[in-house]
Amino acid sequence: MKFYDCKTAPSPRRVRIFLAEKGIEAETVEVDLGSGEQFGEAFRKINPDCTVPVLELDDGVCISDVLGICRYLEALKPEPPLFGRSPVEQGLVTMWNSKVEQQGLMAMADAFRNSVAGLKGRALPGPRSYEQIPELAARGRERVLAFLGKLDDRLRDSRWLAGDAFSVADITALVFVDFARRGKLTAADDAEGLKRWYDEVSARPSAQA
Amino acid sequence: MKFYDCKTAPSPRRVRIFLAEKGIEAETVEVDLGSGEQFGEAFRKINPDCTVPVLELDDGVCISDVLGICRYLEALKPEPPLFGRSPVEQGLVTMWNSKVEQQGLMAMADAFRNSVAGLKGRALPGPRSYEQIPELAARGRERVLAFLGKLDDRLRDSRWLAGDAFSVADITALVFVDFARRGKLTAADDAEGLKRWYDEVSARPSAQA
Repeated sequence: MKFYDCKTAPSPRRVRIFLAEKGIEAETVEVDLGSGEQFGEAFRKINPDCTVPVLELDDGVCISDVLGICRYLEALKPEPPLFGRSPVEQGLVTMWNSKVEQQGLMAMADAFRNSVAGLKGRALPGPRSYEQIPELAARGRERVLAFLGKLDDRLRDSRWLAGDAFSVADITALVFVDFARRGKLTAADDAEGLKRWYDEVSARPSAQA
Repeated sequence: MKFYDCKTAPSPRRVRIFLAEKGIEAETVEVDLGSGEQFGEAFRKINPDCTVPVLELDDGVCISDVLGICRYLEALKPEPPLFGRSPVEQGLVTMWNSKVEQQGLMAMADAFRNSVAGLKGRALPGPRSYEQIPELAARGRERVLAFLGKLDDRLRDSRWLAGDAFSVADITALVFVDFARRGKLTAADDAEGLKRWYDEVSARPSAQA
């Protein structure tokens, strides 16, 4: 299988960390988002949505979605489990992963893509052009700060985001927190739950991926 | 288990259809979103995010996310499988489900929540107030129409959204198409792939849920 990646983008990093936690190696193809390689004819055949990550299987099937790729890999190599074991663990891992995506990552994407000069006319990923909306950038920043506080609350009570075991929800949250940092959005100084968790999750070898 | 529902909202309908396809019955509690019951003290204890659906298990654990609830139910009662069987099926079902959520449902939610008079100051669900952004409503409508076209393209080539079997991705897409209809956004008259699929999926008993 072939993994279409971009070292500087948050979404493919989620898959890189997942692969590292599973101990799976994949041939990697770097896509140059800066020069617009994702809009070229060759990459559109891989993913008409013009986004990374994509996992291309040996028979040519392409999975062009972070969660879809992770689910494929989990089914292929169930150990260590990153989506929970029991039904309730599976439900809670997916729930926390969704909350980080919707309230964290998407808010940060709003903040970033609607304010950076280099993304004028590119406020959403994909082949269509959308103008930046400054109010959406401001709303995104406000939501990111609120969600960092919510993560802190949760991580004061729970070692890992979804409970007793490290899971894909922690991977998504780590990528969110680091993405927010790049945008100079960080939790309050007294966010001890978040800090304790961040130090632990960042110390795992997979965090370097 | 107890299912916190709202008959008129799109998100809990996804779970109702899922339950019907699985043949699982759950005690249902209707939450009156119109009168703001979701912001009251009692419901905040069930879900501090103040949203439906929520599935409360017999031991008090609450799963407050559509995908998390569906994953719990899939693990509890694997037949019929609604998230795919083989690894590649599982990857593609999750991928298509994500695409419908991100490019379809969320775009329609932007269109709806940023334009309806009754949702002033409530442009996002949850306990915090966010003002409507008219450009976001316009962008949402444009994206919904584009995504309806994309669904049509896909459904000309594939009986079901993720391949040969009905899946949770079809449920999410049905709820999206019906939500868009309520906002008077429909596919082009010649969208034969979408029409063929819509007639088939709407004829299933679960679509009445």
